[in-house]
Amino acid sequence: MPKTMAEKILGRASGKDVSPGEIVEANVDLAMVHDLTGPHVVEVVEEIAGEVRVWDPDKVAIIFDHHVPADKIRAAELQAIMRKVARKLGIKKFHDVGRGGICHQVLVEERYARPGMLIVGADSHTVTSGAVGAFATGIGASDMAMVWLTGKLWFKVPESIKVNVTGELPKGVYAKDVILHIIGTVTVDGATYKAVEYHGDTIKRMNIADRMTLANMSVEMGAKAGMVPADEVTVKFFEEAGISVKPFGPDPGAQYEDVWEFDVSKLEPQVAVPHSVDNVVAVGEVEGTPIDQAFIGSCTNGRYEDFVEAAKILKGRKVAPGVRCIAIPASLKQYMRLLKEGIIDILTEAGCFVAHSTCGPCLGGHLGVLGPGEVAISSSNRNFKGRMGHPESKVYLASPATVAASAVEGKIADPRKYL
Amino acid sequence: MPKTMAEKILGRASGKDVSPGEIVEANVDLAMVHDLTGPHVVEVVEEIAGEVRVWDPDKVAIIFDHHVPADKIRAAELQAIMRKVARKLGIKKFHDVGRGGICHQVLVEERYARPGMLIVGADSHTVTSGAVGAFATGIGASDMAMVWLTGKLWFKVPESIKVNVTGELPKGVYAKDVILHIIGTVTVDGATYKAVEYHGDTIKRMNIADRMTLANMSVEMGAKAGMVPADEVTVKFFEEAGISVKPFGPDPGAQYEDVWEFDVSKLEPQVAVPHSVDNVVAVGEVEGTPIDQAFIGSCTNGRYEDFVEAAKILKGRKVAPGVRCIAIPASLKQYMRLLKEGIIDILTEAGCFVAHSTCGPCLGGHLGVLGPGEVAISSSNRNFKGRMGHPESKVYLASPATVAASAVEGKIADPRKYL
Repeated sequence: MPKTMAEKILGRASGKDVSPGEIVEANVDLAMVHDLTGPHVVEVVEEIAGEVRVWDPDKVAIIFDHHVPADKIRAAELQAIMRKVARKLGIKKFHDVGRGGICHQVLVEERYARPGMLIVGADSHTVTSGAVGAFATGIGASDMAMVWLTGKLWFKVPESIKVNVTGELPKGVYAKDVILHIIGTVTVDGATYKAVEYHGDTIKRMNIADRMTLANMSVEMGAKAGMVPADEVTVKFFEEAGISVKPFGPDPGAQYEDVWEFDVSKLEPQVAVPHSVDNVVAVGEVEGTPIDQAFIGSCTNGRYEDFVEAAKILKGRKVAPGVRCIAIPASLKQYMRLLKEGIIDILTEAGCFVAHSTCGPCLGGHLGVLGPGEVAISSSNRNFKGRMGHPESKVYLASPATVAASAVEGKIADPRKYL
Repeated sequence: MPKTMAEKILGRASGKDVSPGEIVEANVDLAMVHDLTGPHVVEVVEEIAGEVRVWDPDKVAIIFDHHVPADKIRAAELQAIMRKVARKLGIKKFHDVGRGGICHQVLVEERYARPGMLIVGADSHTVTSGAVGAFATGIGASDMAMVWLTGKLWFKVPESIKVNVTGELPKGVYAKDVILHIIGTVTVDGATYKAVEYHGDTIKRMNIADRMTLANMSVEMGAKAGMVPADEVTVKFFEEAGISVKPFGPDPGAQYEDVWEFDVSKLEPQVAVPHSVDNVVAVGEVEGTPIDQAFIGSCTNGRYEDFVEAAKILKGRKVAPGVRCIAIPASLKQYMRLLKEGIIDILTEAGCFVAHSTCGPCLGGHLGVLGPGEVAISSSNRNFKGRMGHPESKVYLASPATVAASAVEGKIADPRKYL
């Protein structure tokens, strides 16, 4: 029977023909932890095995990103634990402070994630690697401990949903607007435990950066995985790193639980309004809302391409008085490319505070925590109550272009008038 | 009677002839607060006056630097208070997140501080402005509240000490080594409540950046102020900003309580060993001490010139595995100059985490807090127990070159072998 991407990957990884609903034990191709979740995994592994060990050090990634550089003593302690573990176990996919970036960004840009892989990560946005055609999903620390020890994990094979996105994106409208629109339409539990596949001509034209934005936010509608078939764009992305991969997608005639159609040719810039990711409106409905902070960055939209779009708007302009704009490229490599092309100059001239390779304020850890009553517009993925700081602060989610336009005006603004 | 710099400045500011030991009421030329001390000042002013006000908004500077961007909800709250105050009072010397930098750096680079001025700041390192021939000193929040309300403050006219520094600095030895050597010699209370003046051919050859390093650390030997006479170097520094100032120094024949002579022609790179700034040894004595973190930045050594020296060593090299190197230019302007000249590229390629315009880990706030047992080498000014994080961490102070060499080796290293 023809299979969806999820069925093909879980079938290959469990060594058998699988169907939705079935529970299988699958071999994991890559297991990722970060500075915050890693220590819990280590604790459970030590409790079970009496010592820290992994089934295959080459299949384990340890990436520091959440509280990087350490923003409190506890963060430094946790990082010290993981640094020691990485050294002891000979983990080559180890990225210390300033050496990598946000874990989901690093998995893709280092080409650790590859088409058809089964990837687990102790972070919900592990789904991001679906951008290159992997089945990637977030798991808890105890599950990860079992993966570290055995290389295997139980999965219920998810039903698959095909999302067909068609039409040319209007100017000023981006992958972020597409995924916000989708989530706004299907709601935050619209794809609970489903494997979502993104198809259609709009997706085919998207670069890997955009596909990462889509895959990343799939978890915000509850999806177990969000995947883009690996096509010629994907093959070229790997070729750039000297790696040869084959296209990978569903079998022709694969069965989906549902097919969602989205024509985005008339889509407007979208904004997710506090405090839920599915409170999505066209930018016009919230235009003029005063903001205190603008954040461009995160695993959702912290890539070169995102800052290029933001810089088109910020170039020669200034961040509005009273507003701080925080710009944090998602990795060292993204930052370096932006450096070399003069984009960091533009951001800095505009008055942005620039740092790199950390999650920063996305989760309210540091580098832009919100105070009571403060309002932020952010290119990140979650606007839950208190996500970026005080429970009485508010977060609006939008594309980097919408965030940049809002930073310039000091209130939520439509990026299209600047483009 | 011929006067020292301190006597001339306090005499001019109090409108009378003054002598050491005398208590005078002086008019303040510039009063600075930052994000952490400003709210206390506002609180006291409101308590006394029933509302927030200042005697002269053009003589007040509000500069955010300590917890920038906000690293916790409380920091965001404090910044929100000061942002509102700055707006209400029409403070033009207001530098928000990403718009200025470390307060002491901003006072000098914006030419707010000028030769002969009487400057007070609600931060101990306000002495830094002594680099351009100002009498600049740190005061408490209640004193600052009186300054905000009246523009005046009582001062006991300090005795003055003349520090004569002579000789050509050897390669790999910098202003930081000079001041560490001086503090190591006279100890942390060697200049308590004295006005220190730096003279001699070594000082005459120093640029403003180096003079800031000297002046900055004067407080570490207890000095009320640390001043370098404004000479042709100073005049040129102001000319670069289109500002005309006159040289300013002591009267010929001025009386000093003491004269200290330092010949630095054979000085070696110096390191202040935990946990006191006067525990100073030549680098050879601690060479090989393993480090976990290296920090280049702060009001002491976070300027363009400092990073140029560090980059000479980091260029084409990598920060040692297991060590994180944090590089934080002291202001937006310093960062931008480093950006344009490719120095940020060099730092980033070497594996440094780069941010800008914040105090960062210097005071253990964020961006590199130390865990228990961790060891840092830092270009900052204080190595007190727990200063950068856990009470069981250790901080060694050194020049940016020594910090860079140590980052490369992963242990305290002599920079001279790389130069």
